[in-house]
Amino acid sequence: MNINLDTIPKVNEETGTLVSDYINTLTKPIGSLGRLEKLAIELAKIKGEQFPSVTPPGVLVFAADHGITDEGVSAYPKDVTEQMVRNFLQGGAAINVFSREIGAFLEIVDIGVAKDIDDEQLINKKVRYGTANFFREDAMTREEAEKAIEIGYEQGLNLIDKGAQCLILGEMGIGNTSASSAILAVLSGQDVSDLVGIGTGLTSEGLARKAEIIKESINRRNPNRDDALDCLAKLGGLEIAGMTGAMLAGASRQVPILVDGFICTVSALLASKLSSNANDYMFVMHQSAEPGHKAAISLLGKEPILDLNLRLGEGTGAALGFPIMKAATLMLKEMATFESAGVSTKGE
Amino acid sequence: MNINLDTIPKVNEETGTLVSDYINTLTKPIGSLGRLEKLAIELAKIKGEQFPSVTPPGVLVFAADHGITDEGVSAYPKDVTEQMVRNFLQGGAAINVFSREIGAFLEIVDIGVAKDIDDEQLINKKVRYGTANFFREDAMTREEAEKAIEIGYEQGLNLIDKGAQCLILGEMGIGNTSASSAILAVLSGQDVSDLVGIGTGLTSEGLARKAEIIKESINRRNPNRDDALDCLAKLGGLEIAGMTGAMLAGASRQVPILVDGFICTVSALLASKLSSNANDYMFVMHQSAEPGHKAAISLLGKEPILDLNLRLGEGTGAALGFPIMKAATLMLKEMATFESAGVSTKGE
Repeated sequence: MNINLDTIPKVNEETGTLVSDYINTLTKPIGSLGRLEKLAIELAKIKGEQFPSVTPPGVLVFAADHGITDEGVSAYPKDVTEQMVRNFLQGGAAINVFSREIGAFLEIVDIGVAKDIDDEQLINKKVRYGTANFFREDAMTREEAEKAIEIGYEQGLNLIDKGAQCLILGEMGIGNTSASSAILAVLSGQDVSDLVGIGTGLTSEGLARKAEIIKESINRRNPNRDDALDCLAKLGGLEIAGMTGAMLAGASRQVPILVDGFICTVSALLASKLSSNANDYMFVMHQSAEPGHKAAISLLGKEPILDLNLRLGEGTGAALGFPIMKAATLMLKEMATFESAGVSTKGE
Repeated sequence: MNINLDTIPKVNEETGTLVSDYINTLTKPIGSLGRLEKLAIELAKIKGEQFPSVTPPGVLVFAADHGITDEGVSAYPKDVTEQMVRNFLQGGAAINVFSREIGAFLEIVDIGVAKDIDDEQLINKKVRYGTANFFREDAMTREEAEKAIEIGYEQGLNLIDKGAQCLILGEMGIGNTSASSAILAVLSGQDVSDLVGIGTGLTSEGLARKAEIIKESINRRNPNRDDALDCLAKLGGLEIAGMTGAMLAGASRQVPILVDGFICTVSALLASKLSSNANDYMFVMHQSAEPGHKAAISLLGKEPILDLNLRLGEGTGAALGFPIMKAATLMLKEMATFESAGVSTKGE
């Protein structure tokens, strides 16, 4: 893979200590801004700056199709991937609305949609026309998985070069909760039945079938759980790989990574497998309604920020959580200190 | 009391049904925006509009002192109330930072600070120089409690007249977690020890003493739990009364009420006791770290939106949650429908 993972630095602990002490001089009871204070410290460690900024954010949505939909694992027809990409390009999807509100750069990358979409706003980086059906064969080759990660990495760097101060990753791909559940089952060693959910809205019968298909697929593909690329190639998706690559780009440039829901968290797990340093740049922005998400977050070693029962994807949960991150940076930058405001400290 | 509570209307269920159906036509799997969809429906019911707006928000912070601080129930000296009001006026407190970020009108009301503060930005509506020490006598007279509610009501109406599309209530008052815990213990019938917390940062010894003082105060004052004004007058605070009044103003004008932390939620309980219709206009914006908050939220019959371990007050938690409310309204206003975007619905 043409990415030098050794360039991903450790986060800056010294800046963290500095900022932690500084927060205790701000005009509020010690610790009273709770999680916000912790987020501010983590952001400072990531950027190595006492007053880190996360504005403007960059949102990268990767879209791709999944051969596994042939097995009837999704409530929506495969065509919806392409239709939703068109909706993104017209500005009518939830991620468009939330990206505009937070003043984000938003870019849509076709990394493997099954149809051709001719639109100059779309970044066309199609690796192939959707993955193969992993119930019957490997989803893609190892080379294709690497290429998709490299594309994600490049797109991440591009958006950072344009000025993005944090990266929000999102996806669109009918069938991708199946791919994610399969990868997570292998990485975590947990039973598929505990991890699969209704995705875009399966019935309980559909859900049972989805679990069976995934279980059998894992047996057939038999990926090496210690080899992230093998798991990704055999069971994954091109958009999952793309998000993994973009996360590695964020970490390599000391840019905070705002992780969205279930599928995005599986990408984060893969990125963390490829570079454990990268993990320290990640925030899981929300706990989704998809059952496997809790397991994925726990394996990633994170605590979600929001819990709004979302299960949409596209990066929407991360975009909704962005104002919390921004507020953490503004607390640092704009609040008065006890000294500057002439406020007595505890017990004075 | 010079407020006609009968003018507070019920929320509009028909608009709620209309909006609920409309949300199911938007380009996303049914129900996939979870809590955001429910918030949009509630906002539509409150405003009686299919596309409700919450922008700009109005933030009202009421400040007052508490005689109970003479009993050593707070980690910070009483002077801090006045000092923090000056900090609000200079723009350096957390609520200033977060109000600016969300484009809010912010007004600070002195409804009972123990010292005089001469500043033209401050709304001077002092009812008295802090409450009396409720361990030894009633915190205030019933007439003073009524007057404080009326002032809050007026200030709420004023801010709505200036254009506020939702109301965020906040408070500053050293000692006010004691007053709030006392009121909540009476209203809920729960043991004081289960409800008190460290406030601005008590030690465990200080916490035990606080609980004892409050328990004994309740015995001595013996308020009628079915009479909100009696509870408020005997154990309350002027800023608690002010927030209650402002909430009644919001409800009377069909303006959503964004409730902050523990003290604010106790004000919401009092407002709901005075008008059960008012309860439907309230959102509890976060679950704070103060132990009594969970009990207060549950008694109010609400589910908090954020959980960030905050315990600052000032309205900060509600201001931090505001972008979620705004996102819910933007989802309604700006998302494409399946039909307009040409996206297939489930199973088509």
